[in-house]
Amino acid sequence: YNIVVLPGDGVGPEVAEAAVGVLRVIGDFYGHTFNFSEHLIGGAAIDATGDPLPEETRAACVAADAVLLGAVGGPKWDGGKRRPEEGLLNIRKAMGLFANLRPLQVSPVLAHRSPLKKEIVEGVDLIVFRELTGGVYFGEKTRTDTMASDLCIYTVEEIERVARAAFQTALQRRGKVTSVDKANVMETSRLWREVVTRIHAQEFPQVQLEHALVDSMAMHLIRKPRDYDVILTENMFGDILSDEISVLGGSIGLLPSASLGSVGPGLFEPIHGSAPDIAGQDLANPVGTILSAALLLRHSLKLEDEADSIEAAVAAVLAAGATTADLGGALGTRAAANAVIDAIK
Amino acid sequence: YNIVVLPGDGVGPEVAEAAVGVLRVIGDFYGHTFNFSEHLIGGAAIDATGDPLPEETRAACVAADAVLLGAVGGPKWDGGKRRPEEGLLNIRKAMGLFANLRPLQVSPVLAHRSPLKKEIVEGVDLIVFRELTGGVYFGEKTRTDTMASDLCIYTVEEIERVARAAFQTALQRRGKVTSVDKANVMETSRLWREVVTRIHAQEFPQVQLEHALVDSMAMHLIRKPRDYDVILTENMFGDILSDEISVLGGSIGLLPSASLGSVGPGLFEPIHGSAPDIAGQDLANPVGTILSAALLLRHSLKLEDEADSIEAAVAAVLAAGATTADLGGALGTRAAANAVIDAIK
Ligand SMILES: CC(C)[C@H](C(=O)O)[C@@H](O)C(=O)O
Ligand SMILES: CC(C)[C@H](C(=O)O)[C@@H](O)C(=O)O
Repeated sequence: YNIVVLPGDGVGPEVAEAAVGVLRVIGDFYGHTFNFSEHLIGGAAIDATGDPLPEETRAACVAADAVLLGAVGGPKWDGGKRRPEEGLLNIRKAMGLFANLRPLQVSPVLAHRSPLKKEIVEGVDLIVFRELTGGVYFGEKTRTDTMASDLCIYTVEEIERVARAAFQTALQRRGKVTSVDKANVMETSRLWREVVTRIHAQEFPQVQLEHALVDSMAMHLIRKPRDYDVILTENMFGDILSDEISVLGGSIGLLPSASLGSVGPGLFEPIHGSAPDIAGQDLANPVGTILSAALLLRHSLKLEDEADSIEAAVAAVLAAGATTADLGGALGTRAAANAVIDAIK
Repeated sequence: YNIVVLPGDGVGPEVAEAAVGVLRVIGDFYGHTFNFSEHLIGGAAIDATGDPLPEETRAACVAADAVLLGAVGGPKWDGGKRRPEEGLLNIRKAMGLFANLRPLQVSPVLAHRSPLKKEIVEGVDLIVFRELTGGVYFGEKTRTDTMASDLCIYTVEEIERVARAAFQTALQRRGKVTSVDKANVMETSRLWREVVTRIHAQEFPQVQLEHALVDSMAMHLIRKPRDYDVILTENMFGDILSDEISVLGGSIGLLPSASLGSVGPGLFEPIHGSAPDIAGQDLANPVGTILSAALLLRHSLKLEDEADSIEAAVAAVLAAGATTADLGGALGTRAAANAVIDAIK
């Protein structure tokens, strides 16, 4: 299996290294050969080549079996000609990754660390399906001396494919999809609602579908997060809502994500960013990246047992309180990763 | 003083009536004559005239000293040719209301009803300045058989005027502004950040300014809401973030808003919507609208003592536990409004 590793910026290299260490142990244990090749992206790539997504990196990603990413961005590149984030947006587009999955389970042992009351977050088990290659992220931008604009644009096909992915996942879960839009204001949202409603009726009538407006959803996710199973939404709303709920389980540092296309390799990354303030200090929580590696095994390499084994090890380690500082523990990034490795063994 | 009342849809008429009752008592007590005239907006206006904002309503609003609105919208008008929300968007535009102020103070007596832990929400005292006439709300929309688009557009002038309003308010508060954008993706956000930075440097250097990305802000508002004083943001982000934090104080039913232009009357409305599920049942919390009436007295009529008197009465009533069901109380809409009236007397 060829796995491309994109360490990126800030804490990216540290957490990527931690997850690669875990994957190596899984490889040894289950008898797989993982070939890791590191490539440049984001600010690191700008520094080395002037380009946040060098052609060489792009080519390696599309040819790989899966891609593991650390994080991109940081104040160092503010105001520069090229932005690190461009690298991330362009690799998503180049790999055709239209569905960004962000699962969130609140671990019973960590529920007390949530800013929300325990009785509200206990038992939360949801997954956000964020559309990843459309919306305001990729529409035309204009700029003059006196104004600026961004075009938010969606095609029927873009909505159909991510809706299907969300409904399919709902069938394997509790069978409920909440589609989020702003249909009382946006034309793209009205199209979104129509297409999701049609795909539901034609192909997934057995799934329960509800529609919610993004503003009231931002509120309900805090009032009653247990009500949700699969949340389906467009690119920008998915960005905002999934970050909003990222603290429900105690720390954003725990959360993985998978970005998938219809064919080809997926890209796997923690949802926390580059955290430049703690970069290089062995402080970052590696769990979000380690769980992203588990998603990589499951979704891109179809190694279900291996993925389960990582997830079980993480659960055991969290239950034992072997955590980094964001969760009140005393471990550094490396020690926290080693705790997971010991649990696997 | 001529006050236009727009009851609108759902619970709108009930809460508007409650607030008018409070204003009448204030008028008697302080010796002011308030002339109330009711006009149609939203779904109610569609039903009666086919138009969510009849010309007659528009004319009355711009000629008034202030406008008090209940709520608009409801499933009854879904899929119709005209949408109730159009009425609200168009009256905001017609009155030139570019700054939507949403203050949030967590009452110590209600902090325990928050979905967040008491120690996180206690002492929260912030105000959101949401830009109200630009962004994706008013840009061009297109639709074909295969796609849809919304244009998000901002001019320098639109950003300047709302930024000035936010900085001015910060000077009267704790002196801190957090400006929220998505500058790593959107061109309008990059313009936003530039203009806010320039207005700050040129006109309000004594205010502390920080910039935040909307996704991480959605998270921080839950983790550490006490850190914020004035939050300044564009139309859509303001819609989402202000609804997100609306439950921090225990109930969205408590929260008022003021929409202001540079000259002319302001528009005042609770931030909860039309809540069709509880409409007509004397269940809605009238406090958000009553506090909106207080903002009306303060901002449009410059009657500061009168506004203070309403706010003190509401605080006393909440402290005494005389609340509607959303806050665990046993009072109906009318009884809750009467409790405020008794406290004023
Ligand atoms: C870095 C940024 C461009 C990116 C996004 O907005 O998609 C990030 O916030 C994310 O959620 O992956
Ligand atoms: C009803 C709707 C158009 C409106 C908005 O999005 O502005 C509402 O959500 C609000 O916040 O006042």
